[in-house]
Amino acid sequence: MSSKVASYEKKLADAIQKVFEQEGFPTLYDPARYILSLGGKRLRPLLTLMGADLFGGTPEKTINAALAIEIFHNFSLLHDDLMDRADMRRGQPTVHKKWSASHAILSGDAMVIESYRYIAKAPISILPEVLDLFTTTAMQICQGQQLDMDYEQRMDVSETEYLEMIRLKTAVLIGCSLKMGALIAGADPEEANSLYEYGINIGLAFQLKDDLLDVYGDTKTFGKKIGGDILCNKKTYLLIKALKNSGEQQKKTLLQWLSAVDFDPEEKIRYVKNIYDELNLRVITGNLIEKYYLASLDCLTSIRVSENRKKDLIEFSENLMYREK
Amino acid sequence: MSSKVASYEKKLADAIQKVFEQEGFPTLYDPARYILSLGGKRLRPLLTLMGADLFGGTPEKTINAALAIEIFHNFSLLHDDLMDRADMRRGQPTVHKKWSASHAILSGDAMVIESYRYIAKAPISILPEVLDLFTTTAMQICQGQQLDMDYEQRMDVSETEYLEMIRLKTAVLIGCSLKMGALIAGADPEEANSLYEYGINIGLAFQLKDDLLDVYGDTKTFGKKIGGDILCNKKTYLLIKALKNSGEQQKKTLLQWLSAVDFDPEEKIRYVKNIYDELNLRVITGNLIEKYYLASLDCLTSIRVSENRKKDLIEFSENLMYREK
Repeated sequence: MSSKVASYEKKLADAIQKVFEQEGFPTLYDPARYILSLGGKRLRPLLTLMGADLFGGTPEKTINAALAIEIFHNFSLLHDDLMDRADMRRGQPTVHKKWSASHAILSGDAMVIESYRYIAKAPISILPEVLDLFTTTAMQICQGQQLDMDYEQRMDVSETEYLEMIRLKTAVLIGCSLKMGALIAGADPEEANSLYEYGINIGLAFQLKDDLLDVYGDTKTFGKKIGGDILCNKKTYLLIKALKNSGEQQKKTLLQWLSAVDFDPEEKIRYVKNIYDELNLRVITGNLIEKYYLASLDCLTSIRVSENRKKDLIEFSENLMYREK
Repeated sequence: MSSKVASYEKKLADAIQKVFEQEGFPTLYDPARYILSLGGKRLRPLLTLMGADLFGGTPEKTINAALAIEIFHNFSLLHDDLMDRADMRRGQPTVHKKWSASHAILSGDAMVIESYRYIAKAPISILPEVLDLFTTTAMQICQGQQLDMDYEQRMDVSETEYLEMIRLKTAVLIGCSLKMGALIAGADPEEANSLYEYGINIGLAFQLKDDLLDVYGDTKTFGKKIGGDILCNKKTYLLIKALKNSGEQQKKTLLQWLSAVDFDPEEKIRYVKNIYDELNLRVITGNLIEKYYLASLDCLTSIRVSENRKKDLIEFSENLMYREK
């Protein structure tokens, strides 16, 4: 990682600590401070600072927009965890487990509102554009979460539907994070859009890589337990593809495991993974990730700034591509 | 009602029907359309149009901000109903009853975001001010809801605490609705603030009147069943005042009814109301309402526009003051 990116990470960590610093209303703000303190990679706000840097923008001018995105992202995790009934997040109890469902709902609401308070600090000359980007993205994320929940009930989700769902749920915020930085740095609209498309492609690759690592990750480096998605029947790219490509016997086995109530977790993972292996899904998924990765690089190439300025983003994409966790 | 206010109501009804008109994502937007269609008095957006009119603003220029406020208000009802586990709203099942808790959470989130889409349509010259007012108010409403939930667990809520809670939960949105209209009409900041203070006072009077009508309303005109707040132990002004002012025997009876599990509803209402009567709470609450009402008129008086322009707002305050439902 370049020393510039390291300094951005430090600036972000310091700034995130100051969000919701105000006194009072502990039952409203403690859960928000808690989820923000759980960390994570801070990818999105980092991309906002890097998107600005690409066009000569400074972190000082960009950090409020970056914080808005990180607050919004954490709000969406908070509410999604409640809707998905997830007990743990980053190794810690989720907000609705530690406090209650009502606390999770209301603290999340306060986080959306707070994210707009930070977005509203953008320079007046670009405020309408920035607001429009943020609001459009925020709404798409809700649409993506809705599709994700709708798809839980369905066994016939197509590859196209799945890719559209992860575009909305994950990729648009990556695109928005980057474009937000570009807009604040005063980038030409066409170049800002190329950076957005770079983000969409990277975002898709990122989510597909997540799906892949859940099955084929290295237990030692992955951080989470392998097979978590398989155990909770999560509709990942691999499962959708398996339901589509499987032969009669494979599909029967797969559906049996999907409806099984009482089972040995290791056995379920082994059987499902075996079908994925038979269907060559590791390679198929890997190829799709590669496709989006190459498309992302094309988007970056079309942006007319010096190659030197693009170095950090290229390194960033490579890290996502070749990460093992 | 003046023909102008009637035309505003018509314009609002038409415009509200067009909110969330877009196709697609029915599981996300149907609940939002549903709660918006349940009606209600549309007080807040009407006040935005009236606030603009006071300073010569037109409904055409103001209606988007008015819609933003109505959407946000309905979002807060939607999430509050879920947190309060309310089954009915305006005689119809609440969203989480008709769909599910997850639908209520996510549709509500989409409504907050949509409300910002409407607010962002304000003229660029006043956009930062309008955004700041909206965001500050939205956050105060969350704070008010949090206090309301916190106070459910407490028997020692003071009058001052209660008034601050209803200021945050109810009055600030009335103030914001009016001031929003004033800002869009280009009112002088000081005058816009006087209108805001008018709204705060009217909002406090409005909530206290609600508390009073629950006990002393006329069953025929009130619309809701009398004593609903008493049955669910809602911390109203009357209950808080009764807990404070009651003698030893009265307090014992009151606490017994508050902790009663198995009881005849009519009997509980009769006993609690009897204590309120003994403590003269109808008159005490009425006097406080009168105090806020007079304070609101003082705020209106300080605004330097022709008395003729103020007519509609004065009629509006009178209607709230002397309403029986």
